[in-house]
Amino acid sequence: MTSNRLEAFSDGVIAIIITIMVLELRPPHTTQSAALRPLVPVFLSYTMSFVFLGIYWNNHHHLFKVVEHVNGRVLWANLHLLFWLSLTPFVTAWIGETRFAAWPVALYGVVLAMSGIAYFILTRALLSIHTSDSVLATALGRDFKGKISILIYLVAIPLAFMKPWISCALYVFVLVIWLAPDRRIERTVAG
Amino acid sequence: MTSNRLEAFSDGVIAIIITIMVLELRPPHTTQSAALRPLVPVFLSYTMSFVFLGIYWNNHHHLFKVVEHVNGRVLWANLHLLFWLSLTPFVTAWIGETRFAAWPVALYGVVLAMSGIAYFILTRALLSIHTSDSVLATALGRDFKGKISILIYLVAIPLAFMKPWISCALYVFVLVIWLAPDRRIERTVAG
Amino acid sequence: MTSNRLEAFSDGVIAIIITIMVLELRPPHTTQSAALRPLVPVFLSYTMSFVFLGIYWNNHHHLFKVVEHVNGRVLWANLHLLFWLSLTPFVTAWIGETRFAAWPVALYGVVLAMSGIAYFILTRALLSIHTSDSVLATALGRDFKGKISILIYLVAIPLAFMKPWISCALYVFVLVIWLAPDRRIERTVAG
Amino acid sequence: MTSNRLEAFSDGVIAIIITIMVLELRPPHTTQSAALRPLVPVFLSYTMSFVFLGIYWNNHHHLFKVVEHVNGRVLWANLHLLFWLSLTPFVTAWIGETRFAAWPVALYGVVLAMSGIAYFILTRALLSIHTSDSVLATALGRDFKGKISILIYLVAIPLAFMKPWISCALYVFVLVIWLAPDRRIERTVAG
Repeated sequence: MTSNRLEAFSDGVIAIIITIMVLELRPPHTTQSAALRPLVPVFLSYTMSFVFLGIYWNNHHHLFKVVEHVNGRVLWANLHLLFWLSLTPFVTAWIGETRFAAWPVALYGVVLAMSGIAYFILTRALLSIHTSDSVLATALGRDFKGKISILIYLVAIPLAFMKPWISCALYVFVLVIWLAPDRRIERTVAG
Repeated sequence: MTSNRLEAFSDGVIAIIITIMVLELRPPHTTQSAALRPLVPVFLSYTMSFVFLGIYWNNHHHLFKVVEHVNGRVLWANLHLLFWLSLTPFVTAWIGETRFAAWPVALYGVVLAMSGIAYFILTRALLSIHTSDSVLATALGRDFKGKISILIYLVAIPLAFMKPWISCALYVFVLVIWLAPDRRIERTVAG
Repeated sequence: MTSNRLEAFSDGVIAIIITIMVLELRPPHTTQSAALRPLVPVFLSYTMSFVFLGIYWNNHHHLFKVVEHVNGRVLWANLHLLFWLSLTPFVTAWIGETRFAAWPVALYGVVLAMSGIAYFILTRALLSIHTSDSVLATALGRDFKGKISILIYLVAIPLAFMKPWISCALYVFVLVIWLAPDRRIERTVAG
Repeated sequence: MTSNRLEAFSDGVIAIIITIMVLELRPPHTTQSAALRPLVPVFLSYTMSFVFLGIYWNNHHHLFKVVEHVNGRVLWANLHLLFWLSLTPFVTAWIGETRFAAWPVALYGVVLAMSGIAYFILTRALLSIHTSDSVLATALGRDFKGKISILIYLVAIPLAFMKPWISCALYVFVLVIWLAPDRRIERTVAG
């Protein structure tokens, strides 16, 4: 079983998630520039989520470049990942509307953490049907970035109830460490 | 006539259906965790429908792996299936908003039953253009799970007017028996 | 230049158009079955538009099966078709909300007619880069169904101001003559 | 690394952006034709944005026809382009609702300019991994149209605060110079 259709379906779902988030950016009813000010937190949360989803798409893309075959368990692990990603527009909208309040920021972290865990489960499901000397296994390695990201999210969630901006800074920090595409796989494929 | 574009189109429609359902999960206007409580039934109905649509996508994916060719009748049988699936966001939203009341739960069952029947019709349309010793015919076999699911839905619909939670329990029961991917096809292809 | 990406993009746009129409089907706030009654015209107009868009997808699918190559003009003729199809959700919602009133029904006919004309222009753009003995040219033939459909729409539009239901009957009549897939092409390919 | 999935994802995102814009075209609650009058600016801004996005899709399509391979930087340059394009529905809706007022028209120009710059960055990222005698490099040439478009946008933005219609005329002027598909690439591929 090849992964063509799994990739196409995931592309479709991520493309829609990334795009419907912009529907939260409601045009103001007045023509003044001041009317744009309440939209600033909405725009910032949109941008953060866009980059997060971009990273997932990018990593998903790199990952499936080296996947040789999939099975039913992988299909479900992938749907599980898409489920958590699909909650991004909801938490993004809540963050934007409440201007980065404690509960919304914490819940945003929960969705990020669950997405990270779901991605981890997906890589395990894939590893279980590839040999340990496959390109996939070599490319994933110890998956340090994946594990540290989940850890940072789990630290950031309770911190949201003290200082939401610290949690947001931690989310952005994870963004930065991921913004480089998964060089492990690029390097392995090239090497 | 190959099925590439039929698969791509179905992937697109199912991806959109699955994703726009999350638009019903409106972010609360307050920042309290209590504001999330009315969202619990909306979230539960979203999760149930996500899994149902995931099962359809999964089975559709397995089914078309073994399809050798399609014709005009198959295209329409497939569009008919997509029509019923496209009503899922509507009944999901009604269930979520009314907290699993009788009529919404019954109508949800009607959409499930019609989707099941439409899928059955699609398999018949496919079988009529494949030989009885084709991989498709062997893989589908007697289609016990498909038939029993429709039967359970038809029992659950009237029960919604007595105890909606019994109907929901029956819907979840169908979910469970389908959660395993269609091993018949996986086994047949491997064998 | 092959048509793969044109087909994928068209599939995407039509899949989204067909699916966002269902967002008009707003769940009632009460749990009574009577609450569904005002939704009946919305559901009927949704079904009619779903079938129309299904026919366009189906014919588009059959058409591009026999297309050998495309050029920039074809890309734009195709975008022009997608533009008119993209207005379907708007007129469908207006018809549903006003319960098949004169102006909405007439405007619905305008969108149908413009879509039909855009499809005709697309076939001409394709014919101009295929030889007259190509499968495409043979399959399209005199395109009787395409021309008669546009004629019926043009008759139905003014009739909407006398009896909207006559216009709707004419629209359904066109649906019926198209519901069979474009056998010309299926026959030509098979022959 | 081939560009198949990048193209499919971009097609998906652009298809959704182009289609959700039509959701701004809300059906009037009355059945009179006069009720359509306030929709005229909404329709005009929708049409303008549809053509702009159509041009981007078209050029993206032509561009990736001659791309031989992509890397992680190209993936991000492409996501950056999609980010700015995804803001089109927001500025389109604001323009339509405020009937082409100064600030909305200026912000529309900012989104157009940023999209143009993002497209330019994407072409540079592609050129850096193709040889100077590649089809891509020959086809792009000096990219006069791309540079002049950005220049016109930058002129049009401040003009919106004097006469919004002049800015709109400039936007339409850019549309006209792009409406022809990128003949450079078509010519280069054919030659």
